[in-house]
Amino acid sequence: MIVSLSESSTAFCFLLILLVPLAAMGLALIHVGLGRSRSAAHAMLSSICAIAVAAIVYVIVGFAWQGASGRPQHEFHIGAKSWGWIAAEPLFLRGLHLDLSPSSLTLLLQIFSVTLAALVPLSSGSDRWRLGAICISTALFSGCTYPLFAHWVWGGGWLAQLGANYGLGRGFVDAGGSSTIQCVGGLTALSITWILGPRRGKFSDDGMPAALPGHNIVLALLGCLLVWIGWIGLNSAGAILLTGADPSRVVLVAVNTTLAAAASGLASVAVTRIRFGGADASLSANGWIAGLVASSAAAPFLRPAGAIIVGGVAGILVPIVADALEFRLLVDDPGGAVSVHAISGLWGVLAVAFLSDSSALGASRQWLAQLLGILTLLGFVLPITYALNWLVDRIQHQRIDRESEGRGMDLAELGAGAYPDFDTHSEDYGPR
Amino acid sequence: MIVSLSESSTAFCFLLILLVPLAAMGLALIHVGLGRSRSAAHAMLSSICAIAVAAIVYVIVGFAWQGASGRPQHEFHIGAKSWGWIAAEPLFLRGLHLDLSPSSLTLLLQIFSVTLAALVPLSSGSDRWRLGAICISTALFSGCTYPLFAHWVWGGGWLAQLGANYGLGRGFVDAGGSSTIQCVGGLTALSITWILGPRRGKFSDDGMPAALPGHNIVLALLGCLLVWIGWIGLNSAGAILLTGADPSRVVLVAVNTTLAAAASGLASVAVTRIRFGGADASLSANGWIAGLVASSAAAPFLRPAGAIIVGGVAGILVPIVADALEFRLLVDDPGGAVSVHAISGLWGVLAVAFLSDSSALGASRQWLAQLLGILTLLGFVLPITYALNWLVDRIQHQRIDRESEGRGMDLAELGAGAYPDFDTHSEDYGPR
Amino acid sequence: MIVSLSESSTAFCFLLILLVPLAAMGLALIHVGLGRSRSAAHAMLSSICAIAVAAIVYVIVGFAWQGASGRPQHEFHIGAKSWGWIAAEPLFLRGLHLDLSPSSLTLLLQIFSVTLAALVPLSSGSDRWRLGAICISTALFSGCTYPLFAHWVWGGGWLAQLGANYGLGRGFVDAGGSSTIQCVGGLTALSITWILGPRRGKFSDDGMPAALPGHNIVLALLGCLLVWIGWIGLNSAGAILLTGADPSRVVLVAVNTTLAAAASGLASVAVTRIRFGGADASLSANGWIAGLVASSAAAPFLRPAGAIIVGGVAGILVPIVADALEFRLLVDDPGGAVSVHAISGLWGVLAVAFLSDSSALGASRQWLAQLLGILTLLGFVLPITYALNWLVDRIQHQRIDRESEGRGMDLAELGAGAYPDFDTHSEDYGPR
Repeated sequence: MIVSLSESSTAFCFLLILLVPLAAMGLALIHVGLGRSRSAAHAMLSSICAIAVAAIVYVIVGFAWQGASGRPQHEFHIGAKSWGWIAAEPLFLRGLHLDLSPSSLTLLLQIFSVTLAALVPLSSGSDRWRLGAICISTALFSGCTYPLFAHWVWGGGWLAQLGANYGLGRGFVDAGGSSTIQCVGGLTALSITWILGPRRGKFSDDGMPAALPGHNIVLALLGCLLVWIGWIGLNSAGAILLTGADPSRVVLVAVNTTLAAAASGLASVAVTRIRFGGADASLSANGWIAGLVASSAAAPFLRPAGAIIVGGVAGILVPIVADALEFRLLVDDPGGAVSVHAISGLWGVLAVAFLSDSSALGASRQWLAQLLGILTLLGFVLPITYALNWLVDRIQHQRIDRESEGRGMDLAELGAGAYPDFDTHSEDYGPR
Repeated sequence: MIVSLSESSTAFCFLLILLVPLAAMGLALIHVGLGRSRSAAHAMLSSICAIAVAAIVYVIVGFAWQGASGRPQHEFHIGAKSWGWIAAEPLFLRGLHLDLSPSSLTLLLQIFSVTLAALVPLSSGSDRWRLGAICISTALFSGCTYPLFAHWVWGGGWLAQLGANYGLGRGFVDAGGSSTIQCVGGLTALSITWILGPRRGKFSDDGMPAALPGHNIVLALLGCLLVWIGWIGLNSAGAILLTGADPSRVVLVAVNTTLAAAASGLASVAVTRIRFGGADASLSANGWIAGLVASSAAAPFLRPAGAIIVGGVAGILVPIVADALEFRLLVDDPGGAVSVHAISGLWGVLAVAFLSDSSALGASRQWLAQLLGILTLLGFVLPITYALNWLVDRIQHQRIDRESEGRGMDLAELGAGAYPDFDTHSEDYGPR
Repeated sequence: MIVSLSESSTAFCFLLILLVPLAAMGLALIHVGLGRSRSAAHAMLSSICAIAVAAIVYVIVGFAWQGASGRPQHEFHIGAKSWGWIAAEPLFLRGLHLDLSPSSLTLLLQIFSVTLAALVPLSSGSDRWRLGAICISTALFSGCTYPLFAHWVWGGGWLAQLGANYGLGRGFVDAGGSSTIQCVGGLTALSITWILGPRRGKFSDDGMPAALPGHNIVLALLGCLLVWIGWIGLNSAGAILLTGADPSRVVLVAVNTTLAAAASGLASVAVTRIRFGGADASLSANGWIAGLVASSAAAPFLRPAGAIIVGGVAGILVPIVADALEFRLLVDDPGGAVSVHAISGLWGVLAVAFLSDSSALGASRQWLAQLLGILTLLGFVLPITYALNWLVDRIQHQRIDRESEGRGMDLAELGAGAYPDFDTHSEDYGPR
């Protein structure tokens, strides 16, 4: 699918793309807010480093492998069908003429998208993931894992070709990145929690988790509002550039994005209120984001009522999944990246098939294409991202040593705390 | 008045509208910054809940009753004149085709405007308003009070028709919402302060108010800057979509908005410096916002010098009115919503008649239309919003119980504080 | 050079310009975050006052003297050549018709640019510069120093005419303000550090500097991300309006701006890690900003690899220059404005000559024009801005008295602290 745009639409897309860094800023705030005060400077600095590494590595190699729909790619053949598996763009954007063409705009959107996705795993490694390891892991993420899968979905690769080749709906559809950005980020976050292990003091000897509250809920909730605006840009630009939606669909996208976040946030408030006797601010923040995550894939295809359902389900899932991860699987995910980005992302991918307005996306067997995408995420992306991070960990431990963890990442790696004028207490918390 | 726009102008309006959530974010920060630390998470979470409830309820019923200019409405007749009193749109946007048409854009602007307006009363109820009550009150606000008055002004209702029907200027004019968003929000805030009563420890037995300083002035002032940008979007989009101004007026609108805020902020700094011997940061923040509030109604019609006057007057009024409310009327309005949004909003509405550039808005008896709008706000909207909130309070107390208030809203309603790693002291303050 | 733009391009520019206040917001956060907690409210309030004064004074007199390219100016003659030295616009924008024309857009961009530039010196005067003096100094800055030099570069003045008159490349070229905004701001910051002198306790008797850490690194790093977005708007709008670049160059500008910040931030992380054994968060924040500062002048003319070099060099320079200023020159610059804005700005100006893609800016002897600009900055702007601030200081001390400085600017000038609910300790730090 090759997108063509009028002159005013290209400028329009450019400006929508410029909203995406607001979402990155919001994720950084959620990351820092839900972590401990003794690691706050480290959380922000590693966010900035992850953004920087992701942008540079993506420009050097990532885009070469992701490419854009309608541009050259390497293909393999099964029977009479050809399937794209990796793009064939030059390294370091050499020879690309950057202007307001759809492929240039896609490049820019992808630079910002990969920085966004690269932030997702950070909050899973809060309070124990070394800065150097973060940079290496991010380089592998933005240079390898992300562009490969994103090529399959957005670069004209085999998942996108499922429609034309096998008649599975319009092929795998993800307008704004529920799979490419969110699931790939969230599954990497899951790998990181496995490789790093839980924070010191998170689980007692008999596996009971302690509550380690985030140190600044105000920043985390402020982050939610920033992510909201950024997401409207992300979903709108994605709809136009990556699924070829008419630019006039953006009002619908904005309404749906907002309603999904609203429904999801309220659902998390309600669920945690029923369960704990009072709304849980951290989980509600996660719920709000989960609604946005889930909305991305289908935002241009939903009716407003459908957006409320997509968000509401995401908001109910978040506290339940977060609990299951913690109590059943003993996964310590301080920022909730797995439940928010991986699980809600998967739900968003499914919602494309089951909640889309049939006039917008009416082809048959769409659900099968979506399911194949989900299987690819779980059966291929998760092992790859786990393996890459496991390899990094073999070469040099990704986790800080135990004694330094007790002092906090700020003192251990930066030599100074984030809040030197404030009296803080950063002792470990006991089990619940 | 039916607005028609070129293709590039519609995309332009869409992007202007996307700035409005920045203003909502700013108001949330001012709310949390001017409240106590023991209620900070609650302040942010209730802001997010208010945004969510307002957006969903407005989509379900609010827009059906507000509508947009030039679309169907219910009318009553006086003599040979017909007057619109409520729109006749479908519930839940059913059958509406959302695209980049002016009415779709107006819908989107209104979704964001009502979330903005819904945040105004929150800061008046700081540190004592229950989350559940906030959600119910917000639902009534965005489903009833707001759309009704906004229909009269922006939906082609009777206030807008004063010009065509009775020759009062161009009818009631409010380009950016000084009345609809700000006054309706500010008068609801006034009702809330009356219904909730002052915070524990605010007034001594002989009526002397204590100073209860906001817990984070940095966030409040950061909020001012966010509101500034959001307001440029709000005033520009409003000028184009709601008063039919030519899109080329946006540069004037941006200059005027900026100058009004600047003049108002400096005026508040000067007044508080003269009065207290040093500038008061909280009141200066309120002053800055007051200039923006006052600028909205007339921004596309003012010359830059006029904008400075509009802002300057607003900035002088804020500390004076805030004092009068506190010392004379014993109103406890922690965030200053009444002085900032209600009073400055009224001033902005008047300024349309007296400070507009005659080449831009030159019809006679404009002042009478503006006065009728003000009388409607005070004589109809205020009683309605008071009655609705009084009813809610009858059914279930809107205010938290006294003992819980002492512990702070965070512990009482959320079960955890916003800043668990920081040493804070949250005892009550004594009288001045 | 007279810029002409299509209708959709003018709206595009307007929206790019609206991103610039995000950069101002980011600089304010860096200012407050790198200062002490006992001056935090003062830091934010003086940022807002500086923005307000700069905007109003610039509208009254600044634009009259800066003007815009292709509009009337006063000239002097050397031989047969005429050289512009000051614009001839009306005071207070009288008679100017504000619409979406390039000159109106330039006015708006300049209003926001001067507020941005006016914030630069503030962080050099952290914790000791009086609010009243800040307002007066800002008025002189935005009414005199800034518009004069900006006229020479952007208003068609003599530096811009070096190309046409003497064949020095395309004349002095600065697309986004590395010289006009950043160097003029940074050299004013240097003057302020000289006039105010170092903070109490900064240097021991034998000249050893003490480390006085910023009180909130999280806010400072959040500011970096805001500045990034604002800068994309600034560099893009500047490229189009001030150097006549085709609007389609904005994607390149956005990519280059992002890469420069990324490379610079990572370089500062690496340099401080090598040097101190751990990355320094404050210097890394400064490094990130330095990359943006350096990118401005040449952003539309660089290839992506060139942008990485521009940023990388800036990021290496920052910690080295900061150290030299502190240890060798005994300059106390709490926010790093001199190293970040003055030095990186100069580097950015040079980079135009040496790193530009020859197809974009290929004229000969460009380096000489750039060098003349740098000499003008050092030999004319710096003395002027020093003299003006010295005069102000003669009339009334710009610095707070020593005893008040110990209590902090908040108590001394505002009568209340920024964080009344938090336990803080604000004793002076000893020498390293």
